[in-house]
Amino acid sequence: MTSTDFAPALADIRAGFEIPPDKVYLDGNSLGPLHRHAREKTLSVLQDEWGDDLIAGWNKHDWINLPLTVGNQVARLVGANPGEVLCCDNLSINLFKALAAALQLNTPRTRIVTEATHFPTDNYIAEGLAQLLGPGTCRVDALPLAEIEQLDFSDVAVLSLAHVDFRTGHRRNLPALTQRAQSGGALVLWDLAHSAGVIDTALSENNVDLAVGCTYKFLNGGPGSPGFLYVAQRHQHAGNVIPGWMGHADRFAFEASYRPAQGIGRFLTGTQSVIALAAAGAALSVLDGIDIGTLRECSLRLSDAFLAALGDHPTTAGIECLTPTPHSDRGSQISLRLPEGYPISQALIERGVIVDFREPDIVRFGFAPLYNQPTDIDQAVAALADIIETRCYEASRFNQRNTVT
Amino acid sequence: MTSTDFAPALADIRAGFEIPPDKVYLDGNSLGPLHRHAREKTLSVLQDEWGDDLIAGWNKHDWINLPLTVGNQVARLVGANPGEVLCCDNLSINLFKALAAALQLNTPRTRIVTEATHFPTDNYIAEGLAQLLGPGTCRVDALPLAEIEQLDFSDVAVLSLAHVDFRTGHRRNLPALTQRAQSGGALVLWDLAHSAGVIDTALSENNVDLAVGCTYKFLNGGPGSPGFLYVAQRHQHAGNVIPGWMGHADRFAFEASYRPAQGIGRFLTGTQSVIALAAAGAALSVLDGIDIGTLRECSLRLSDAFLAALGDHPTTAGIECLTPTPHSDRGSQISLRLPEGYPISQALIERGVIVDFREPDIVRFGFAPLYNQPTDIDQAVAALADIIETRCYEASRFNQRNTVT
Repeated sequence: MTSTDFAPALADIRAGFEIPPDKVYLDGNSLGPLHRHAREKTLSVLQDEWGDDLIAGWNKHDWINLPLTVGNQVARLVGANPGEVLCCDNLSINLFKALAAALQLNTPRTRIVTEATHFPTDNYIAEGLAQLLGPGTCRVDALPLAEIEQLDFSDVAVLSLAHVDFRTGHRRNLPALTQRAQSGGALVLWDLAHSAGVIDTALSENNVDLAVGCTYKFLNGGPGSPGFLYVAQRHQHAGNVIPGWMGHADRFAFEASYRPAQGIGRFLTGTQSVIALAAAGAALSVLDGIDIGTLRECSLRLSDAFLAALGDHPTTAGIECLTPTPHSDRGSQISLRLPEGYPISQALIERGVIVDFREPDIVRFGFAPLYNQPTDIDQAVAALADIIETRCYEASRFNQRNTVT
Repeated sequence: MTSTDFAPALADIRAGFEIPPDKVYLDGNSLGPLHRHAREKTLSVLQDEWGDDLIAGWNKHDWINLPLTVGNQVARLVGANPGEVLCCDNLSINLFKALAAALQLNTPRTRIVTEATHFPTDNYIAEGLAQLLGPGTCRVDALPLAEIEQLDFSDVAVLSLAHVDFRTGHRRNLPALTQRAQSGGALVLWDLAHSAGVIDTALSENNVDLAVGCTYKFLNGGPGSPGFLYVAQRHQHAGNVIPGWMGHADRFAFEASYRPAQGIGRFLTGTQSVIALAAAGAALSVLDGIDIGTLRECSLRLSDAFLAALGDHPTTAGIECLTPTPHSDRGSQISLRLPEGYPISQALIERGVIVDFREPDIVRFGFAPLYNQPTDIDQAVAALADIIETRCYEASRFNQRNTVT
């Protein structure tokens, strides 16, 4: 595989990413890079929309509907219907609303099942909700995946899981787990943070009830760009547990009582950042016309090439890989277990190979089909091998911890 | 009063606002205009920080602490101490957290008192929280202000009020109401949406317990820019009802259990938009070194001039003004009651005098000391008088309702 024959359908998109030429960027699973369109659109929103049109921008540029229109862009990529996804707030807030809606929809069941190694915020939020509702009203069980796979779900209100595990890159069997939980009468809530934009989650086809995610990883919306919330159309009669004016049926009537809007809009609460939503929308528009299947195929070709290169090099061949090898079980990252993972990740970064580290010993390599190329793989593996061989990571500067790892 | 002698201390700041020259902008109470610094900083965050430094930006540019650092900028303007304000999410979400914290802090009291004509979202959120907690655990009473002023508060957990009424521009007596409620054992939560940046709320001096607000009005952070949350230092042991990873004591340890951070940071939940926070921070930095007392004084001079000009013109002299005349009772807007308010507001906007309308018959004129000048007042009153005299507002184009009013 050479760079010239890699994913020609994506060549134009790739050219628009403004990644510094001295960097091999393998951290799109944490923060996607800047695309020219996102920069240009954001500047235009600042200058031409806000700057020139001021308050009139809410009508003239339809800012008021951005959570829905950007939500529809996300909907296509996660296999949902238009009107089933909102882009707003952040994943954590959306999860709080989704869990509360699930409990309401599945009354009188009160049990939330999550995975013990779920992304921490997902479990903190579930526990926070349970604490708020009080004993007897909600209970959270964080179980190992193997146990979840055997559960009969007959007393479970909602199963809350990550589609791709953030530590290991293990992709869970979304169709099978959804079906199993639903056959026991539970609803299913998927966290798509590490799969949106690289794996077809086919939410409608898989009859998924609820989902949340973020736009700052493989969707390239920018640091801290908005989260998203999917509520299947059949569940949109549920209440919004944080009912604000933006979800009201007639926002500018300023009625004393809350009347929820019809459809997904009722899950909005407060005013959303127009700049943040516009940047996310511009980043998403880069994907217009690109099939999610193409992205998944390219992602797998990249991670396959990385595994092959690792195996081919005598220095790296023996490294433990936490990510499952079968395509069906693999997300869009490869996680290596390295006892000296922190300083090794810092040494890679110093050489321009941008990866990240997760406690206690995991180095993550993310593969983004939109901009990564086979040459990135070759450079990353060569750098890793050299760093291990020379033990240069033992230098004290690589052992100083950053605030964000 | 001529433009040349108006607020010379603010002349440099005024010159930096990029308001189109054909517009008289009197809607800063709804959406502040773009300042050059905000545009430049946002572009730099996009291009130089996100674009060039990618994931390293979280450490290198201290993105991770933006909610605290921008919060500290707000703190100075609302009379709070550093470490008492977070800039994050939006007003509605922050209010939900603040109300829940108040109930927790004031256990076993369960009664929330709000004003019947409070900004609707504030009451929707309170009702939503009460519904979530269930009967017996929380009750919301929305009362007229006159009744609140006589209440003994002996069974009230928290009083939730707007400092300045969004419809009438009536400024409430924050020190007296705070003291009265607290003397009955209640906590007090102020919504500062219409006062932050134009009135010294002196939160510490007035011993205020909790407050929320937004940065998109008189703080000029941009459309939908982040909200803020003030929690007095003495109350920061309260829990965050939506506990997410950003409020964890050690975010990147990814611990299975939630351990709240010390201080205001624990009230964070999910990842915040760096672009939105940076724009808000840049807009706030425009105010560095400017005393809030100066801003209040200039605001009153502008609204005084507006009232005088209205009174001087035979066509406008008889219009009913909903905003109280005493300075102590006036916010930074003047609200006129006009039976044909909607088409009149649209006719003003067509002539470049940007105001807004609130149901059923209120036209609001906002006064922003940072960029409004006496000439704006003269032009606005002349346009209003002419529109009323010529009845041009009767044209059908002025009667077509916009989505956002």
